[in-house]
Amino acid sequence: MTSSTRGALNFSTAECEKIDPYIPPPGSSQDSRPHVTLTYATSLDSNLSIAPGVQTLLSGPESKSMTHYLRSRHDAILIGAGTAIADDPSLNCRIEGVGGYGGDGLDGQPRPVVLDPNGRWNLTDASKIIKLAREGRGRAPWVFAGHSFAVDKQRAIERVGGKVFLVTYTDPQASSGRLGWTQILSTLAKEGIKSVMVEGGGVVINDLLSSNNIQLVDSVIITIAPTWLGRDGVQVCPPERAENGQRVPVGRLKEVKWIPLGDDVVLCGRPNV
Amino acid sequence: MTSSTRGALNFSTAECEKIDPYIPPPGSSQDSRPHVTLTYATSLDSNLSIAPGVQTLLSGPESKSMTHYLRSRHDAILIGAGTAIADDPSLNCRIEGVGGYGGDGLDGQPRPVVLDPNGRWNLTDASKIIKLAREGRGRAPWVFAGHSFAVDKQRAIERVGGKVFLVTYTDPQASSGRLGWTQILSTLAKEGIKSVMVEGGGVVINDLLSSNNIQLVDSVIITIAPTWLGRDGVQVCPPERAENGQRVPVGRLKEVKWIPLGDDVVLCGRPNV
Repeated sequence: MTSSTRGALNFSTAECEKIDPYIPPPGSSQDSRPHVTLTYATSLDSNLSIAPGVQTLLSGPESKSMTHYLRSRHDAILIGAGTAIADDPSLNCRIEGVGGYGGDGLDGQPRPVVLDPNGRWNLTDASKIIKLAREGRGRAPWVFAGHSFAVDKQRAIERVGGKVFLVTYTDPQASSGRLGWTQILSTLAKEGIKSVMVEGGGVVINDLLSSNNIQLVDSVIITIAPTWLGRDGVQVCPPERAENGQRVPVGRLKEVKWIPLGDDVVLCGRPNV
Repeated sequence: MTSSTRGALNFSTAECEKIDPYIPPPGSSQDSRPHVTLTYATSLDSNLSIAPGVQTLLSGPESKSMTHYLRSRHDAILIGAGTAIADDPSLNCRIEGVGGYGGDGLDGQPRPVVLDPNGRWNLTDASKIIKLAREGRGRAPWVFAGHSFAVDKQRAIERVGGKVFLVTYTDPQASSGRLGWTQILSTLAKEGIKSVMVEGGGVVINDLLSSNNIQLVDSVIITIAPTWLGRDGVQVCPPERAENGQRVPVGRLKEVKWIPLGDDVVLCGRPNV
């Protein structure tokens, strides 16, 4: 049964063609871990939002369409608990033609994945992500929890077909390497996920960009908006890196492409590691 | 007498045409203050350098040529004492055809201006800027000092034809509005300067972008390199702004143009104030 296209978005073929080299081709396979695409939108001063817990509209409507196009091209999308709490996000794909937006079943809908090492995500049956799964307009979420997870929340997830994984977060307090990416990515691969798009927030992005983890990232797609949010925002700025006692850049991109999109620019590249 | 073109740089006409709408046209006049162009180069995490006092090569050779083209199109270039100390900068223009690089006299050479409220700039006769002025390959510097300036440094400046201005820095300790821009810009205007390019460093840029001062900026030209430098660098991130108790963005650009240049991107715009 084909669904209604109400609320669906479009992203032009011309724009798709510019971005496609940086996203996994359909049907690509990888054994031990999925293709990881890191994507986020910042201000000129590298802020994701103006203050912790405050959702800040940074980029224009074209950028929103691009995000949903990217979601349609990944098996999973991943965020941290902080973003899940701050935004009550839908985490589905609303590009015209995917399941729930003109297409059949859940075709083209990515699996939402939430990292929640400390059991902070305050989800209920009324959370958008649960509601959309119930309505057949998005997949049910998977949660990577720490050593335990509240039973009522686990039930809310399982009722719509989601799952809770308990993983060993190597060091939930350390600023670097804390999220146990190797275990998370290998679990996703075992569950059949061949590509994952990491969307935020600050803790997750800075951890993945740190020198311990950046080699896990296959491609990066960043939107930059021509605005300054100012100090005390949620900033993308990974932990510093030193070699032989000297500070060196944390990471650099190769195969770089800058694509103006409305008032914003989209940067595509691959970590040069 | 025409000078040698040794060490001269070129910037293509095609690139010039993209940037020209954002810089003052030759012979433009403005009464009370010069046209102010703010220009800098950062990493993706909005760092100017990897650590205070460390000069960090961020952008590619095309970007260097652009900087020198911009210098050729401004009457003055302005930096803070911190940058003057860290970089021992030349602060001249090396575009082919300007005075000292194929052209006559000092035609096309901007006036270097250094803000030094606390008398920190450790210049001597051996500083590059003094040497270039002596050789006729750059103009002599002007310094905006606080209530006093060391006599030996003043003499080194005056020997090559430079000047020291004593200005009242409104509040040298405050984080915002500290540099007394109105007085500095009106002094420059009285001295015949019709356009000034502000090049850095972090203190100067963040102060000029703060909500008290951003209305003084006529255009912004920023180069962004596809790299992350990491925490504890020298960062462009202006003081936060609030209205009615709510955090709001510090500034946004209008008439935005993104110009890919090598691996970098150049953002041109005007503050929307």
